[in-house]
Amino acid sequence: MKGPLLRLLRPRRASPRPLLVSGSLWGRAQTAAVSHAYSTQAGSTMRPTGRYPIPNKKDLPYDIVELMEEVEMKSGFLPNVFSVMSHRPAEFRAFFAYYNAIMNKEKGRLSKADKELIVVATSIVNRCPYCVIAHGALHRIYSKKPALADQVVVNWKLADLSEREQAMLEFALAVSHADNITEEHFQKLEAQGFDREDAWDIGTIASFFAMSNRIAHFTDLRPNEEFYTMGRIPRDKEKAETP
Amino acid sequence: MKGPLLRLLRPRRASPRPLLVSGSLWGRAQTAAVSHAYSTQAGSTMRPTGRYPIPNKKDLPYDIVELMEEVEMKSGFLPNVFSVMSHRPAEFRAFFAYYNAIMNKEKGRLSKADKELIVVATSIVNRCPYCVIAHGALHRIYSKKPALADQVVVNWKLADLSEREQAMLEFALAVSHADNITEEHFQKLEAQGFDREDAWDIGTIASFFAMSNRIAHFTDLRPNEEFYTMGRIPRDKEKAETP
Amino acid sequence: MKGPLLRLLRPRRASPRPLLVSGSLWGRAQTAAVSHAYSTQAGSTMRPTGRYPIPNKKDLPYDIVELMEEVEMKSGFLPNVFSVMSHRPAEFRAFFAYYNAIMNKEKGRLSKADKELIVVATSIVNRCPYCVIAHGALHRIYSKKPALADQVVVNWKLADLSEREQAMLEFALAVSHADNITEEHFQKLEAQGFDREDAWDIGTIASFFAMSNRIAHFTDLRPNEEFYTMGRIPRDKEKAETP
Amino acid sequence: MKGPLLRLLRPRRASPRPLLVSGSLWGRAQTAAVSHAYSTQAGSTMRPTGRYPIPNKKDLPYDIVELMEEVEMKSGFLPNVFSVMSHRPAEFRAFFAYYNAIMNKEKGRLSKADKELIVVATSIVNRCPYCVIAHGALHRIYSKKPALADQVVVNWKLADLSEREQAMLEFALAVSHADNITEEHFQKLEAQGFDREDAWDIGTIASFFAMSNRIAHFTDLRPNEEFYTMGRIPRDKEKAETP
Amino acid sequence: MKGPLLRLLRPRRASPRPLLVSGSLWGRAQTAAVSHAYSTQAGSTMRPTGRYPIPNKKDLPYDIVELMEEVEMKSGFLPNVFSVMSHRPAEFRAFFAYYNAIMNKEKGRLSKADKELIVVATSIVNRCPYCVIAHGALHRIYSKKPALADQVVVNWKLADLSEREQAMLEFALAVSHADNITEEHFQKLEAQGFDREDAWDIGTIASFFAMSNRIAHFTDLRPNEEFYTMGRIPRDKEKAETP
Amino acid sequence: MKGPLLRLLRPRRASPRPLLVSGSLWGRAQTAAVSHAYSTQAGSTMRPTGRYPIPNKKDLPYDIVELMEEVEMKSGFLPNVFSVMSHRPAEFRAFFAYYNAIMNKEKGRLSKADKELIVVATSIVNRCPYCVIAHGALHRIYSKKPALADQVVVNWKLADLSEREQAMLEFALAVSHADNITEEHFQKLEAQGFDREDAWDIGTIASFFAMSNRIAHFTDLRPNEEFYTMGRIPRDKEKAETP
Repeated sequence: MKGPLLRLLRPRRASPRPLLVSGSLWGRAQTAAVSHAYSTQAGSTMRPTGRYPIPNKKDLPYDIVELMEEVEMKSGFLPNVFSVMSHRPAEFRAFFAYYNAIMNKEKGRLSKADKELIVVATSIVNRCPYCVIAHGALHRIYSKKPALADQVVVNWKLADLSEREQAMLEFALAVSHADNITEEHFQKLEAQGFDREDAWDIGTIASFFAMSNRIAHFTDLRPNEEFYTMGRIPRDKEKAETP
Repeated sequence: MKGPLLRLLRPRRASPRPLLVSGSLWGRAQTAAVSHAYSTQAGSTMRPTGRYPIPNKKDLPYDIVELMEEVEMKSGFLPNVFSVMSHRPAEFRAFFAYYNAIMNKEKGRLSKADKELIVVATSIVNRCPYCVIAHGALHRIYSKKPALADQVVVNWKLADLSEREQAMLEFALAVSHADNITEEHFQKLEAQGFDREDAWDIGTIASFFAMSNRIAHFTDLRPNEEFYTMGRIPRDKEKAETP
Repeated sequence: MKGPLLRLLRPRRASPRPLLVSGSLWGRAQTAAVSHAYSTQAGSTMRPTGRYPIPNKKDLPYDIVELMEEVEMKSGFLPNVFSVMSHRPAEFRAFFAYYNAIMNKEKGRLSKADKELIVVATSIVNRCPYCVIAHGALHRIYSKKPALADQVVVNWKLADLSEREQAMLEFALAVSHADNITEEHFQKLEAQGFDREDAWDIGTIASFFAMSNRIAHFTDLRPNEEFYTMGRIPRDKEKAETP
Repeated sequence: MKGPLLRLLRPRRASPRPLLVSGSLWGRAQTAAVSHAYSTQAGSTMRPTGRYPIPNKKDLPYDIVELMEEVEMKSGFLPNVFSVMSHRPAEFRAFFAYYNAIMNKEKGRLSKADKELIVVATSIVNRCPYCVIAHGALHRIYSKKPALADQVVVNWKLADLSEREQAMLEFALAVSHADNITEEHFQKLEAQGFDREDAWDIGTIASFFAMSNRIAHFTDLRPNEEFYTMGRIPRDKEKAETP
Repeated sequence: MKGPLLRLLRPRRASPRPLLVSGSLWGRAQTAAVSHAYSTQAGSTMRPTGRYPIPNKKDLPYDIVELMEEVEMKSGFLPNVFSVMSHRPAEFRAFFAYYNAIMNKEKGRLSKADKELIVVATSIVNRCPYCVIAHGALHRIYSKKPALADQVVVNWKLADLSEREQAMLEFALAVSHADNITEEHFQKLEAQGFDREDAWDIGTIASFFAMSNRIAHFTDLRPNEEFYTMGRIPRDKEKAETP
Repeated sequence: MKGPLLRLLRPRRASPRPLLVSGSLWGRAQTAAVSHAYSTQAGSTMRPTGRYPIPNKKDLPYDIVELMEEVEMKSGFLPNVFSVMSHRPAEFRAFFAYYNAIMNKEKGRLSKADKELIVVATSIVNRCPYCVIAHGALHRIYSKKPALADQVVVNWKLADLSEREQAMLEFALAVSHADNITEEHFQKLEAQGFDREDAWDIGTIASFFAMSNRIAHFTDLRPNEEFYTMGRIPRDKEKAETP
């Protein structure tokens, strides 16, 4: 991907290679699992993806098409959030630049699974179907724990979480509820090994999805069907199924 | 741009140069738009602006320094949100890109005052000091109604609003509350002359500030003192004061 | 249905046929999967099923053992609710007698899938892991809709429900919230073809699970692992997997 | 009563002793005051007892008639819950079997008055007229404290309760609110001398009435007039009144 | 019980001194008016009436002693609110002046029973023991309906109220909840025959007791024991009891 | 006192008559006491002050006219609460007597600014435009802190308050929420140097404005325009403005 998003994200580096291709994010090895995050599919024709019209590729700016095609090529389907946000290219770029900055950030103590768990736990508060279903799927894939996201959706306090994960979600939910965040909140995180930069990461993910959940609600963004079953069957079994 | 914000903040100074003209941020045409939001000041030394360390300019990427200096030069002060967000340059860029895309969007039926009113009405729900105080100030300036933001902060249903403004805030608040948004919500907007694109604008502003309010909470972002009094005194009087 | 559960309820009648065997539930091949409704398993040794001690079979009354063994034999596992409730035999009998009277009632307009949907929709309000996970599984099996229960868990108003199902859940949730139930509530049901007897059924299921959810909370009743994946894979695929 | 209810509950055992007769509950001396718990009366003709039709005795199964007549004979009136539930005989049996198992359980540290206090305190949360009025009456009778139930209805935290009673109600209300029940909840009970079996009793009563309150709402179950004044006048005075 | 309160309760008795004579606020003739609400008793020695010290009569201003003695003489007991408020004579005077102005107002469509019903219905929202118990007693006496206040305490929407009473309480509760009061609220009252002056009366009673409830909470004002049973026994019976 | 309020409102005018002289409640000398709160203005003609008709002076009792004229003469305007309450003279007297007893009480540890802060903090909970706007203005004047009331309106926990002020508002808000007030509440106040009499003062102000907020809602009492800007400009500047 060339273009504004790339430039926004990594403006100083001349980047001959498309943005999301290199690196671990959309790299080949991970593609199978991750690509799902956001990819394209024909199936979205039968049911509306959302409430707003979705532009044809030919009417979209080049950088957006390029990104969507790359995602689509490497994954099995294009997550509906790409389609719905493409209705507003400038917002599409800013949205995914922000998403990329926090969800694909390499530094810090949050694993990919941690981040997805935060998304699931905060999005269920806002009862956002897309965010809960899609990121529940991503959590299953990254964590290799097929039941944990479901547990968190029902009742995070009773889920099979480590104390570290509990502290992380407690902070994330306080941010998501727009609580006043005090030093005590930070200290609870620190007791589990998270520093202030990790707190920023947790807080920003919770805040970003506070936004995403609401955009999903007013655009009536629907989860792709693929998300419901992704990551529920252990890899070996999955392979066995598709000889 | 002959800086509307600039003029708002320090109306007496002639400003021959547009606020945020050139620069890498998002290309020539769009640049000016962004600056509006905020500007610089030395006063932030006496009280903490927020909970996270604020980088020295020399440690910040060029494009961010350029933007902040231009804002600071042309306005009387740098709104604290710039300082606080500069702790994370990549997020800074995405945050203000998004802000710019929605708050400085030229098309659509929302005036600048309408947009600020949405920010005030939704941010009070989350009890965000920075967002309410800063955007209350901006509303006073854009609307030239010195009391309306205060009224909305206390009780928007009892404020001196037009039916059109009431419908706009009702939609914005439904989004802010993460309510399920139904066709009925859109129809109420349409009855007041807002089409689906305006609804997207209202919904996105409400969603973006759902995020901003929460970031402000965990970073402990404090309003600059200037915001409390901005726009409270009619222009004529203000001029009279400074012969 | 005839059998041990029946025997509990109407003990005078000799019942030579086992409880969950006959019937259309899912036909012979499926029994193992479904019986699950409530059945036994060795796996429960590794993680605590609940907070209270679970009696050994030898210490349980004959009728309770008989029921549990039958369930266990025919299904692949014993749902944990049987184990946990067996701590109090008299309550076990009354609990399952009530459960049977409403969930296995043959008359009325509620299908098995309808009943499970009510359980899922009301149990998520109380954030009951066992009830949501176990009955979500049963709903998938009875309805053959693998995604609907997940949708209802997140946000029933946005789920792919018929108007009839929406009316049914609206009534069930009003009962679950302990709202005052008015004639208007009944009229909304009637508009979807439910009569007063159906309303009783819906209301009683919602009420019974208001109890069950709370018992599950104080006993810390945990869902069996089997429930998480039950009914997610279409039949054909499932068969293919197990030659 | 030659316990049809008993027979329901313990069907195989020949039970020469009638279920509710022996023991202090329905013993002769107490009958006048207590029988009220559930008994029959002609007065129910003038106002509807509930929303559903109440069967004629001749249309009811023998065991249910037997139970109701016994209650009616020994007490002054038939509590409306019997009439309303008789609309569904199978559910009637399970409901009263469960009720009997927990409310008339002889073992454990909960007195009859304790149990009624739990019912009052949890039923007021759900604003259930029948449950609050009827069980407030029973509490007055069992406790011989004519004002305490009224106090608990208004504000249990300000009522004249012992620390033991406060701990009991705090646990019961946590269960009633469908809170997650943690070890800390049990420890607070233990500090007041309640063990885990008592906790089960408290939790089950709270849970059972979570169900009853909701059934009462959708059936529009109304309290018998007798309940309003029962137990308000000291026994001596009462006797004096009726020479 | 003899006295002004009694007289209120049993109005047929000739009362040689006018109860509510015009004149200056705390003039002799008027005193009795205030007393109505309440009366005196020695019993308050055994349990604390409230959290603040209660002055000795000799330390109280003459007008307050005079009022309290008259109330005490004519009634059987001094309601605790008089004792507790006497801690602050200036506030005592203003409190009872306001009380008198609204509760003993002769004009308008609200009966004494109506006013007490408003107090009960709004005070239960704030869970105020004194206000609910004392004014529930007064309602029983004025209305001669011994069960209605108890019903309203549990669930006013299910109480045996006329449509007129329901409209009255709906308005009172909206005021008590500090809702925005709109023209629609007034129109609903008008549909039941209440004009704007009646609305003021209802609204002021609800507002005054919003204050009283809170004062009762921080002073820990306790209801006198007499209130629990007042008005529960029909007049004839009461006479029979006290030959 | 040579009218601080008066001076605050129109500081340039010499006020030869004392504002708060001791004496009988509505005697000449005392009248001024009440005026402090508020003052008169002709401007109320252009927009409705409230929902109820405001009497002409000639139709009002002498003592009320006298009070209003004094307030009007000495201040620049008559606060709308005087006009609206004059619709009911007896209630007007009691309302302002109570107001005077608590807001102009000289003893105790609460400063005038403290009292206004309590009014602002509790009135925003009830979203009362008049009370928040008018008393926010009074707070700015008494405290000489032009931003603090605005901060408290948005989020008192994040406002620049001393620990003493925080404890004071915490107690006031507990009373305003009609919480049960326990010994622990008093102890927290004591830790900040407030004794039980101060607690009574705080509690009564919170209680009185719980009433006022509600009266303001049903009378649709609107703030005078003057209040929005009062106290926002430092004194020196103000003088400079009016040479």
